[in-house]
Amino acid sequence: MDTAEYRRRGKEMVDFVADYLENIEQRRVYPDVEPGYLRPMIPSEAPLEPESYEDVLRDVDRVIMPGIAHWRSPHFHAYYPAGSSVPSLLAEMLSEALGCIGFTWAASPACTELEIVMLDWLGKMLQLPEDFLAGTGGQGGGVIQGTACEATLMALLAARSKKVKCVQEADPLRSAADIFSKLIAYTSEEAHSSVERAALIDGVVMKMVPTDDNFSVRAETLEKMVAEDKAAGFIPFFFCATLGTTSCCSFDKIDELGPLCNAENIWMHIDAAYAGSSFICPEFRPLLNGVEFADSFNFNPHKLLLVNFDCSAMWVKRRVDLTGAFNMDPEYLKHENQSSGLVTDFRHWGIPLGRRFRSLKLWFVLRMYGLSGLQAHIRKHVELAKVFESLVRDDKRFEICAEVILGLVCFRLKGSDELNEALLKEITRMGKIHLVACKLRGRFVLRFAICARSIELRHVQEAWQHITELSCQLLLKHH
Amino acid sequence: MDTAEYRRRGKEMVDFVADYLENIEQRRVYPDVEPGYLRPMIPSEAPLEPESYEDVLRDVDRVIMPGIAHWRSPHFHAYYPAGSSVPSLLAEMLSEALGCIGFTWAASPACTELEIVMLDWLGKMLQLPEDFLAGTGGQGGGVIQGTACEATLMALLAARSKKVKCVQEADPLRSAADIFSKLIAYTSEEAHSSVERAALIDGVVMKMVPTDDNFSVRAETLEKMVAEDKAAGFIPFFFCATLGTTSCCSFDKIDELGPLCNAENIWMHIDAAYAGSSFICPEFRPLLNGVEFADSFNFNPHKLLLVNFDCSAMWVKRRVDLTGAFNMDPEYLKHENQSSGLVTDFRHWGIPLGRRFRSLKLWFVLRMYGLSGLQAHIRKHVELAKVFESLVRDDKRFEICAEVILGLVCFRLKGSDELNEALLKEITRMGKIHLVACKLRGRFVLRFAICARSIELRHVQEAWQHITELSCQLLLKHH
Repeated sequence: MDTAEYRRRGKEMVDFVADYLENIEQRRVYPDVEPGYLRPMIPSEAPLEPESYEDVLRDVDRVIMPGIAHWRSPHFHAYYPAGSSVPSLLAEMLSEALGCIGFTWAASPACTELEIVMLDWLGKMLQLPEDFLAGTGGQGGGVIQGTACEATLMALLAARSKKVKCVQEADPLRSAADIFSKLIAYTSEEAHSSVERAALIDGVVMKMVPTDDNFSVRAETLEKMVAEDKAAGFIPFFFCATLGTTSCCSFDKIDELGPLCNAENIWMHIDAAYAGSSFICPEFRPLLNGVEFADSFNFNPHKLLLVNFDCSAMWVKRRVDLTGAFNMDPEYLKHENQSSGLVTDFRHWGIPLGRRFRSLKLWFVLRMYGLSGLQAHIRKHVELAKVFESLVRDDKRFEICAEVILGLVCFRLKGSDELNEALLKEITRMGKIHLVACKLRGRFVLRFAICARSIELRHVQEAWQHITELSCQLLLKHH
Repeated sequence: MDTAEYRRRGKEMVDFVADYLENIEQRRVYPDVEPGYLRPMIPSEAPLEPESYEDVLRDVDRVIMPGIAHWRSPHFHAYYPAGSSVPSLLAEMLSEALGCIGFTWAASPACTELEIVMLDWLGKMLQLPEDFLAGTGGQGGGVIQGTACEATLMALLAARSKKVKCVQEADPLRSAADIFSKLIAYTSEEAHSSVERAALIDGVVMKMVPTDDNFSVRAETLEKMVAEDKAAGFIPFFFCATLGTTSCCSFDKIDELGPLCNAENIWMHIDAAYAGSSFICPEFRPLLNGVEFADSFNFNPHKLLLVNFDCSAMWVKRRVDLTGAFNMDPEYLKHENQSSGLVTDFRHWGIPLGRRFRSLKLWFVLRMYGLSGLQAHIRKHVELAKVFESLVRDDKRFEICAEVILGLVCFRLKGSDELNEALLKEITRMGKIHLVACKLRGRFVLRFAICARSIELRHVQEAWQHITELSCQLLLKHH
């Protein structure tokens, strides 16, 4: 197949995709398939001879579509949004075509250089402190990771490496293994599971910090834990704060936690995977106050900022903390400019060496929406969540379970967990809208997230009507 | 922007990409830019108001293209190929449009299920032992990782977790920290830098095993190291074998190393990132003999199998080894089917939770090329490397530095490293073809890799002519 084929088939695929997106509302948002549905529908081996594109495309409709949860549908309210937009889709097409693998500056200079500058653009949009920007002579800088999981893991690894060095400088006879076994990391009991998982991967102990009535970690609580652990001979070294938890979008009090971490030489990493995008709006920026005390900060433009997955933006104040931890230089990756101090080799900044040209997505989206367009998008999402919140509050059978700050509403039917579990099960079975649950203080709670870019007021109203209808039926049955 | 905009702009982008690919040969393959070239070419902040698509596209030509190493060009012979093809590009477009994030089965069943079956298809194409396939009741199975780095890291983590458990079962009073500090991993001195890096990340000691005259690790050598380490109280637990090393595409002798690892309870992981694709050809399959002794196996369809980056295929014999290591289950990721034993939640199989719908690329490519088409592609690449090898061998001023088995030729001018460094520098300066170097036994060696899908005999011949011309000038100057 050659470029003439691509020219023809590519345009057909554009129409296929446009048709899909235009009619997505008519589809059942959540699939009605059983585990293992797909295997019997296709051959058990790859074909020996080529098949036609028409056959493949037919099978997309026959085999794939029935098993898709339609994340782009305005009826999708599960998890958090998976960003997408026309500029982002166009940039992905270009990125795939160029196909450069940007592990070093030399592997494709534009790929590395645009990423550095785009992370500066983005950092300025969030009003990150100057320390986090690369600029032309800064010590800090940003990098695109695949996911927040990877950003957390990299921060944890950098913090560990730094702490071991630091302790050994003061006490040269102490072994790395001994220090390692005494390290303690902390995060909120409401933090994303990937934070605890990063500690498991790294093999260090991580303690869960209890939260206050707003599901926020407070300095007082962490301070006590740190003091106790130090007294017992342990070495506190890392705290992962969350701005916008996955369960209920709560915010740790980084303005009081930051000074504590700084005083205790604890690396503070901020995971703002979902909420981070909102900080480009002046009215939400106060939620980020305290970032000046952090060592690293991360959020996912691929959630609320209309950029396609994956694009997780991470900044550090001292890039040498990241790059110094696992720097390796085999000959086949060496290049003339690497020791000049002028270049960035992003392979030292993350787990994978190979990297796609992801900054193109940021460039296209930031330019074609402009800051004002992106602010409008975020404000609309938050407003629709507020609408849903007020619909819930107006119905005495329901309760709101956590403060609604951005685009997520946690709610439940007053009553038992079983009742709410039954409601969610019924919602899923109907497949008209899609929600998932969370646990808050042990209680089963429904999460209603504003997700699709194309969502409008009527979708929120219809969703609420659907939920109340199902609830009526349920409550009748239970009485 | 809406779908009408996407319909129009998407088709324009298809033409833009097709034009780029059709005329790529006319471009300077390697850019002539200095570090920092890009920043002054664009504004220092994102725009407040939207800019036009025309302006963005104009800047792709003005700002991006001058800094691109054209990996798709038939003049590109650096590193290893970055796969791409029309079916793969089409599948990427579809995957981006669907935008489902497949961290669990429930997050989009088709995304998980197609991946399971595609890895079975691929495993059968390579004639992997039945143990590695998921089938309908198997213990093994495959998963798509982003890169081989991640596959190696996951294998290492699984091996570590398994060994710690195993030692503690025999000796319940021994602490994990103590066991951990005694663990030793091994890999070839010729292994990719990411293998050693995985050990650094994990915090375990990794020893480099010397290779024989063919740059292959032999059982005898590893056996001696393991015996010595055991005698000194250490716990050997992991060996990463390489099939197709990055420097010179050499192959460790897994058919003799495998039985040793099995006898010593050492996890054998096979990294066949580049070479793995070739095993779909019967004539190259013997290189994989011994895989039956491995615990995990990995190769990158995004290198030689025409699939766009990223798509790194990894198999394990016992998936519980991977999933048992870091299983975490918060409420918002729970779903009805997860405990049924019927579903696979790929979030337990890798570092990132979020995952793109990458198996679509495999499905499109395997079907639209067929096994025969992919075999033809690989054979053509290997044949062109053989052509280049014979051109080198026919010129007495040059020497071949490693056996040419697949699509890579390691060669150098007879003489000093300085001479060869000067040759590479001149090649890079001219920008007509692009090569990188490696070190073999401390000597500076040039690598000529067959990369682009569109490469033909004439490109190889022209490249050789260019190299010999530059060499003539150099040799004249040096005499």
